[in-house]
Amino acid sequence: MNAQLPAQAMQESIASRYRAVRQYSLELIAGLSAEDCQLQSMSDASPLKWHLAHTSWFFETFILNTRPNPAPVFDPAFAVLFNSYYVGIGPRHARPQRGLLSRPALSEVLAYRQHVDRHMAQLLADSALPPDIIALVELGLNHEQQHQELMLTDLKHHFSCNPLAPAWRADGPDQTIPEHNRHPTQPLELNGGLVEIGHTGSSFSYDNAQPRHRVWLKPYRLASRNLTNGEYLDFMLDGGYQSPELWLSDGWDAVCAGQWRAPLYWQHTDTGWQLFTLHGLRPLQPLATLSHISFYEADAFARWAGARLPTEAEWEHAATSAPADGLFDEVWQWCNSAYLPYPGFRPASGAVGEYNGKFMINQMVLRGGSLATPSGHSRLTYRNFFPAGARWQFSGIRLAWDT
Amino acid sequence: MNAQLPAQAMQESIASRYRAVRQYSLELIAGLSAEDCQLQSMSDASPLKWHLAHTSWFFETFILNTRPNPAPVFDPAFAVLFNSYYVGIGPRHARPQRGLLSRPALSEVLAYRQHVDRHMAQLLADSALPPDIIALVELGLNHEQQHQELMLTDLKHHFSCNPLAPAWRADGPDQTIPEHNRHPTQPLELNGGLVEIGHTGSSFSYDNAQPRHRVWLKPYRLASRNLTNGEYLDFMLDGGYQSPELWLSDGWDAVCAGQWRAPLYWQHTDTGWQLFTLHGLRPLQPLATLSHISFYEADAFARWAGARLPTEAEWEHAATSAPADGLFDEVWQWCNSAYLPYPGFRPASGAVGEYNGKFMINQMVLRGGSLATPSGHSRLTYRNFFPAGARWQFSGIRLAWDT
Amino acid sequence: MNAQLPAQAMQESIASRYRAVRQYSLELIAGLSAEDCQLQSMSDASPLKWHLAHTSWFFETFILNTRPNPAPVFDPAFAVLFNSYYVGIGPRHARPQRGLLSRPALSEVLAYRQHVDRHMAQLLADSALPPDIIALVELGLNHEQQHQELMLTDLKHHFSCNPLAPAWRADGPDQTIPEHNRHPTQPLELNGGLVEIGHTGSSFSYDNAQPRHRVWLKPYRLASRNLTNGEYLDFMLDGGYQSPELWLSDGWDAVCAGQWRAPLYWQHTDTGWQLFTLHGLRPLQPLATLSHISFYEADAFARWAGARLPTEAEWEHAATSAPADGLFDEVWQWCNSAYLPYPGFRPASGAVGEYNGKFMINQMVLRGGSLATPSGHSRLTYRNFFPAGARWQFSGIRLAWDT
Amino acid sequence: MNAQLPAQAMQESIASRYRAVRQYSLELIAGLSAEDCQLQSMSDASPLKWHLAHTSWFFETFILNTRPNPAPVFDPAFAVLFNSYYVGIGPRHARPQRGLLSRPALSEVLAYRQHVDRHMAQLLADSALPPDIIALVELGLNHEQQHQELMLTDLKHHFSCNPLAPAWRADGPDQTIPEHNRHPTQPLELNGGLVEIGHTGSSFSYDNAQPRHRVWLKPYRLASRNLTNGEYLDFMLDGGYQSPELWLSDGWDAVCAGQWRAPLYWQHTDTGWQLFTLHGLRPLQPLATLSHISFYEADAFARWAGARLPTEAEWEHAATSAPADGLFDEVWQWCNSAYLPYPGFRPASGAVGEYNGKFMINQMVLRGGSLATPSGHSRLTYRNFFPAGARWQFSGIRLAWDT
Repeated sequence: MNAQLPAQAMQESIASRYRAVRQYSLELIAGLSAEDCQLQSMSDASPLKWHLAHTSWFFETFILNTRPNPAPVFDPAFAVLFNSYYVGIGPRHARPQRGLLSRPALSEVLAYRQHVDRHMAQLLADSALPPDIIALVELGLNHEQQHQELMLTDLKHHFSCNPLAPAWRADGPDQTIPEHNRHPTQPLELNGGLVEIGHTGSSFSYDNAQPRHRVWLKPYRLASRNLTNGEYLDFMLDGGYQSPELWLSDGWDAVCAGQWRAPLYWQHTDTGWQLFTLHGLRPLQPLATLSHISFYEADAFARWAGARLPTEAEWEHAATSAPADGLFDEVWQWCNSAYLPYPGFRPASGAVGEYNGKFMINQMVLRGGSLATPSGHSRLTYRNFFPAGARWQFSGIRLAWDT
Repeated sequence: MNAQLPAQAMQESIASRYRAVRQYSLELIAGLSAEDCQLQSMSDASPLKWHLAHTSWFFETFILNTRPNPAPVFDPAFAVLFNSYYVGIGPRHARPQRGLLSRPALSEVLAYRQHVDRHMAQLLADSALPPDIIALVELGLNHEQQHQELMLTDLKHHFSCNPLAPAWRADGPDQTIPEHNRHPTQPLELNGGLVEIGHTGSSFSYDNAQPRHRVWLKPYRLASRNLTNGEYLDFMLDGGYQSPELWLSDGWDAVCAGQWRAPLYWQHTDTGWQLFTLHGLRPLQPLATLSHISFYEADAFARWAGARLPTEAEWEHAATSAPADGLFDEVWQWCNSAYLPYPGFRPASGAVGEYNGKFMINQMVLRGGSLATPSGHSRLTYRNFFPAGARWQFSGIRLAWDT
Repeated sequence: MNAQLPAQAMQESIASRYRAVRQYSLELIAGLSAEDCQLQSMSDASPLKWHLAHTSWFFETFILNTRPNPAPVFDPAFAVLFNSYYVGIGPRHARPQRGLLSRPALSEVLAYRQHVDRHMAQLLADSALPPDIIALVELGLNHEQQHQELMLTDLKHHFSCNPLAPAWRADGPDQTIPEHNRHPTQPLELNGGLVEIGHTGSSFSYDNAQPRHRVWLKPYRLASRNLTNGEYLDFMLDGGYQSPELWLSDGWDAVCAGQWRAPLYWQHTDTGWQLFTLHGLRPLQPLATLSHISFYEADAFARWAGARLPTEAEWEHAATSAPADGLFDEVWQWCNSAYLPYPGFRPASGAVGEYNGKFMINQMVLRGGSLATPSGHSRLTYRNFFPAGARWQFSGIRLAWDT
Repeated sequence: MNAQLPAQAMQESIASRYRAVRQYSLELIAGLSAEDCQLQSMSDASPLKWHLAHTSWFFETFILNTRPNPAPVFDPAFAVLFNSYYVGIGPRHARPQRGLLSRPALSEVLAYRQHVDRHMAQLLADSALPPDIIALVELGLNHEQQHQELMLTDLKHHFSCNPLAPAWRADGPDQTIPEHNRHPTQPLELNGGLVEIGHTGSSFSYDNAQPRHRVWLKPYRLASRNLTNGEYLDFMLDGGYQSPELWLSDGWDAVCAGQWRAPLYWQHTDTGWQLFTLHGLRPLQPLATLSHISFYEADAFARWAGARLPTEAEWEHAATSAPADGLFDEVWQWCNSAYLPYPGFRPASGAVGEYNGKFMINQMVLRGGSLATPSGHSRLTYRNFFPAGARWQFSGIRLAWDT
């Protein structure tokens, strides 16, 4: 929301944004079959069909159903089937069983989307829409964008379990090599001091990025770019996965339990390292950006390299004060910051307050964005978060150093 | 194979049987979507798409590929994807991951079936087909019939995990009530003695039903029909699931671990007991035949009733010497016989020898057949087998008594 | 009980037997510390202290407490702590937590034994003791002898988890080599026919060995002795543990899950194979009798050797009709017979009826006896039983062949 | 170490401290049997015998063995048996199997302690002891004090698994009631600002409490005392354990998985709530300080109470600037701070560097100290840490509020 716009223009803007964001979800499944959209390879990842339905359920539940004259309910069973984790709303279908829903069919879920879109269009045409509703629409669009990123990361994992190595888009480009990956990283020098981080202003942010607050930072250096596959290969060749002294204790347990020998999706074959990508199996490019790294691996690499991971305050401060060019890249960047509430944090009121706050434990923060992040969804203050062992996201490594 | 027929007629017979059996697999999925056919609710149960492909793989692998001029391979990857457990053939896709194969699509699997059928038709048109090939075709058809039964039992379990309670055929009949269920069971009196059981003659049987051999039986009585839902309900109302003294030790562990309070697919609702069936959720019929019972439950019921389960020799002897009318019914009947080799058992030679023998441990025998058993697949000497805790088969209870 | 003796003599005999059996339990722990007697390395195995207490609880519960003037209760808490699995008696301390009972101390448990022995002595001095009580005493003594065997097998397992490889008796003999192990096995030729097995007569047997009944046996051959370590080593060197086609399906799963490469307690060291024994770590003797073999391994070896395992009826028939010299040896011998009730089986009445019957599922029968079986406890009709994957018993292999 | 003292006095001081600290470990096991000292109830908790040996191993490994003329090794096997997690030192006996070591006996471990003490006494008598050795001795003594606290928390858990509810010291005092517990908590008002936290100066601290650094704090209020049992009971009676909306998502999972209904060691009996204590089972005192609370429970209680948990910086700032009287109490206090490195953190060099740093993930910080913390071991800057679900420590709740 741009505070400069008059109310009328703002509303046009959100109606148009609504159409664009919703449309993009459909573009993501172009070329996929109903069978593809039903896959669930692990309980952390959901079927694409479920994402398509759940994002519609969000608009229906938190907006359409709460209006004075609510839209007719498309299917009352969907209230349970497509609730993710909102206990304030009611019971939920068990997460690990989302892949067992052949009914509703994909075609029905697409009809459900149209139903919701039709009623949302009517609602958004109302010139007297109260600001709290507009704010919920904005939240719903950001929510859908988050799920658009998950649609790609989840699909990649689903497909990786098929020995046929299916491609999302077989004609996709090979791994791109950003120009800065061809040169050594240049440490950015930051002075620190009493800085401010967190979201402020009238534009959208999640509650977890607020309130803006002061943080004291010592001087530090931050790598100008993320690691490449080739740089990580050096760590592997130096015995990184065989050296417990480089790892956090829980990290070493993960290496042993998961028999980790390389990042997720790397496959060692007779012809060298291959990478499973959204475009099928491809030869590993040493200069491409490293991805699908857990926090444990990022931390171990940093220790091996005599460096460390940045805190999220260091990352955000650098992103706002230094040339941010290399900060948004193909991968989210693990920070050595636990995902905890900012000082003075207040969850949004009502059931949407479950959106972020209740996950503030046992997770580490990632900053930046990835090649799967929808355009316009990245923010300097954005706090992404995953458990330290998660590897199926597009997550990489940016190093930092004490000065 | 009917030994009375001349070779020519026999071959026509098998070609025609081949077409009929293969066709029936397709009839089973009529009305189901590709999404339905991909479901896998537990590792014991496979997607219907997988059954369709695996039964074709069987003909391709054990017959087409072994001929002097083998048929062109439809897709070399299928050799791994659709091998079930034949280690003699090569590696296999992990069983719990069969539901993660959105590729090949159902349409491709159907094309695979047509490819196999076309080449099998050519082969079966050869008037000089050696008897061992005909025997393998016969084995493949029986194999496919076994999978036809599994297609129904597996689908029922897959669908039972969807809160929408989908129906295989919504317009199906209600639970049927055999006339004999309306009357008390009449114990059949058997004298026993030195009897013979096991398959003999030139008609088909699996290797596990051979060789025919002698068994000494004491006199015994066998119930004339299987238990009804209402009879089992009496056991439940008398605290059957709360009385450890009625159960085998492992059975009681299963009751506690699985929180069993009723047979599988029974649901207690505000309007009484409902039964999840292949035709949707229906009110429980007390006079209908009890089904989806584990060996543990069958054994506990028998103990409660002052009876016992028959041995498989007792069952087979009764089936051949007494009026067999009630013995083949809607449900397989648990026997208190472990699934072990008959004296003198020899597995078939080659990889098909893995068909039966390697499962001869930790399983109990069931006899009879069920409403899901394809017509013509039941045999008096047929040895079905499942672990004592299995409940997703159409398995019920026939009681026996010492005299 | 010897039916020939007059009542008076029989009673003297049982009182004297009581003292001897009870004394032997104490001899087994000579040289062990209270800490040794508290070890519990897995839930299948119990601490020696628990065995000492539980066998006393058996006499207290089933005999002393049921008399008109019951003995004073030593400690009411023991009723729960030392009940093994008798649900008819009341609640039980959880089996996996038996090793967490530092209280009562070993010294208290020994005092408990003395208390029970004192009152049992008074009871056994009563010249008018009813026969059912004498029968229960006999059962209690056999029960204690079973636990004496378990004390040794359990202790061996407990000690095997200590890298110091403690010895029960460090000055014990090395692995003995029976003379017949120095010669090839001589198949005993048995004609079979309609034979009888099972216990009969007035001497003691467990309920599971009754009633005596007829079994039809085909002619067969039985090895004259059990396998040696060296013979099993041939199987290992021929890739036995790497050849799935030799194994039952569940057996191969056990090989993979447990990473089995050799029998339990075999350790491959720089100086060759070592064996962990009750007398410490010793070099493996190729001519010593093979032990600590699961049913799965026994079955795989037999398949590799072109042989099979005998049924329990074959074993018992041979033991009674052929020279039994080699049949009782250092190891129990796996039979390819499931542990199921004999025709006409009736469990003993009352809570002691839980002794055997409720374990008649998912177990295989072993026959013979082992070096740990107390003197006088072996019987030709004795049915021992363990799950197919159990390896901590002194269990070996005797082969059989069809003729 | 007091920087004011001349070297000679300092050394006397450390020699005397060594004797006192080592002696206190022995006092803790006074009255316990060798069986008690071998108990291991879960892999998180170690046997007391193991603690006694491991703390000696620490002095032997990091000090005695590194000297120019190392002391004779007491038993080479102890290097593996009593290494906790120092991969830099070599292999370790598996943690969950520490309770399976009946050998060495407790008496041998006590002899081992004497051996180490004798050689440490010689070493400490050397007037030219280099400062880094003195620093390692100081570390070893603090290490032993940490284990002294664990000896009590672990023993309490071990004993809690015995239905007899054994007491460490049966004649111990009842739950004490600090005077301030009799009055409502008084929020301390803190202004915050740019404060400093972390250890500085020449006295001992662990590496994880360094370096001292600046933190910006907003104004806040901190409860003047910790919660009482009665205050927590109000939360329980208001449905705290039945209200998912009060809990972090992982916390609610823990409630469900562990079937939590009350804090650890609370038992609901016919006569009301009982508390299992180191002095046996006692009636719960509502005014006594609440203990054995997980972070999840602390967080849920705070949400229910409209409060929050303090950060560790808030806690430490308050402890140094406000009357610290109530801050050190019977329980450690959960902070809403993840256990992560302070800015500029450097682990100690060598294998002792594994002491703290490698656990800096998936743990939350606790501050203060408990009734089990040895006298002299508490520090304002001390960072204790445990996973969010841990309940077997003496951990309680101090609330905070935004202003």
